[in-house]
Amino acid sequence: MSRIVYVNGQYLPEAEATVSIFDRGFLMADAVYEVTSVLDGKLLDFAGHQARLARSLNELEMQRPCSDDELLAIHRELVTRNDLTDGMIYLQVTRGNPGDRDFAFPDASVKPTLVLFTQSKPGMADAPAAKTGIKVISIDDLRWGRRDIKTVQLLYPSLGKMMAKKAGADDAWLVEDGHVTEGTSNNAYIVKGGRIITRNLSHDILHGITRAAVLRFAAEAQMEVEERPFTIAEAKAADEAFYTSASGFVTPVVEIDGAAIGTGKPGAVAKRLREIYLDESRKTAI
Amino acid sequence: MSRIVYVNGQYLPEAEATVSIFDRGFLMADAVYEVTSVLDGKLLDFAGHQARLARSLNELEMQRPCSDDELLAIHRELVTRNDLTDGMIYLQVTRGNPGDRDFAFPDASVKPTLVLFTQSKPGMADAPAAKTGIKVISIDDLRWGRRDIKTVQLLYPSLGKMMAKKAGADDAWLVEDGHVTEGTSNNAYIVKGGRIITRNLSHDILHGITRAAVLRFAAEAQMEVEERPFTIAEAKAADEAFYTSASGFVTPVVEIDGAAIGTGKPGAVAKRLREIYLDESRKTAI
Repeated sequence: MSRIVYVNGQYLPEAEATVSIFDRGFLMADAVYEVTSVLDGKLLDFAGHQARLARSLNELEMQRPCSDDELLAIHRELVTRNDLTDGMIYLQVTRGNPGDRDFAFPDASVKPTLVLFTQSKPGMADAPAAKTGIKVISIDDLRWGRRDIKTVQLLYPSLGKMMAKKAGADDAWLVEDGHVTEGTSNNAYIVKGGRIITRNLSHDILHGITRAAVLRFAAEAQMEVEERPFTIAEAKAADEAFYTSASGFVTPVVEIDGAAIGTGKPGAVAKRLREIYLDESRKTAI
Repeated sequence: MSRIVYVNGQYLPEAEATVSIFDRGFLMADAVYEVTSVLDGKLLDFAGHQARLARSLNELEMQRPCSDDELLAIHRELVTRNDLTDGMIYLQVTRGNPGDRDFAFPDASVKPTLVLFTQSKPGMADAPAAKTGIKVISIDDLRWGRRDIKTVQLLYPSLGKMMAKKAGADDAWLVEDGHVTEGTSNNAYIVKGGRIITRNLSHDILHGITRAAVLRFAAEAQMEVEERPFTIAEAKAADEAFYTSASGFVTPVVEIDGAAIGTGKPGAVAKRLREIYLDESRKTAI
């Protein structure tokens, strides 16, 4: 089935969905994005993703393409037109098409480019990785210095995924100055003696929407949370490990650089947080 | 006049030149580029740019879109169709359009996307900046760790140009660990006691094609060259400063962070190197 996607006010068959070669998203990665999960046809944490989008746009002095209400309407229209039950909606905003290439920003008359499309993932909430856990390798974090802005500068995360694949693993955890920053497209956690440890927010990591929700639920469930950088050695000696992301929810990590973590099986904390996250997110899905 | 541009085998009016929204160049900055200057309708240092393109593609395990001969033919066809006398030809290769978004590389059946377009700059060899020099500010270098690969991850260089503009300057020199790496889209040099000082090649800077040529010409002209990192304090105390790039050739820098360099006027070394570079490059232009 051909998807119907959204490009600058139009709903189009995916094969016809294009942008100008002069779009700044294409020529200089001058673009930000969000991925919102859909379960049972409803959007998870939509407000959180829209708030982060607004922050990314603001940090880069980029225009908002439309109102939150309009964005919600586009998301819902795409769910309907594509009969989406479980999956994701990808949204990208670029600084637009000035008609030529120039490092300087175009003037305000150049409108941002807005692109959205769906990705169907039937049974996403019961992904096999949630039961088996995933394996990660550690690699140097070579990304730029503002990972808190969700830009499309994803070449290094993409290279990292390929390094993991080649090493027989599923993902890579990025290490800078001896400490884990995050996964290639997710936030990283370890659990030791009942304490959940994850890196504190800064310019060094993405301010995960799922991270914020999971830490809130953990606190409500009286779990201890420590926000600070941790090392790969600490991770290897941890009782368990996991990651969070919009599409992976809470997913156990059972091996780092070939070393089993804890029992080498998904841990109880990750399992419980995944259940709470899915339950609570479904309740507030719109 | 509407330009004729090249996209994946087709010559098209610029307004009709598009790529899929699923192109990896658009979704994840998985793309590299080159800019070749044209003077009197001829390509400057074409072989150098093609060699660097091949290196960028190789470093990222990206397929070559076509042979060097075919690329040369496309460049020449664009010069002819657009009646280009002086200016640049921009070339971009992406990992192609796999039809969906995925961090993992697509399989080899997905062909790279190839885009080229011209930019006319009449009188480029006599640009006013060559006579007046430019002003730069220094800013932190927040780019990713592989600046030797010429990727389209140009958001930070673009932000840097805007910071310079706001400060009343023309460009920014990027500083990492106390030393200048390079300009936002060019290599940086200072001259002290007759010695030309520029940062040594590594993953930290672009391996400039113009840089290589200029250093070769400098050596042939018995000028002393020292390839090592330098500080902003050294630059402020230098006799002169300049930058090199494919489209700026050799351009004097007369002010850094508000402080005049040397006399505050373009220096003799930059002037001489610009003349030699233009003379020699015209001789070998094709």
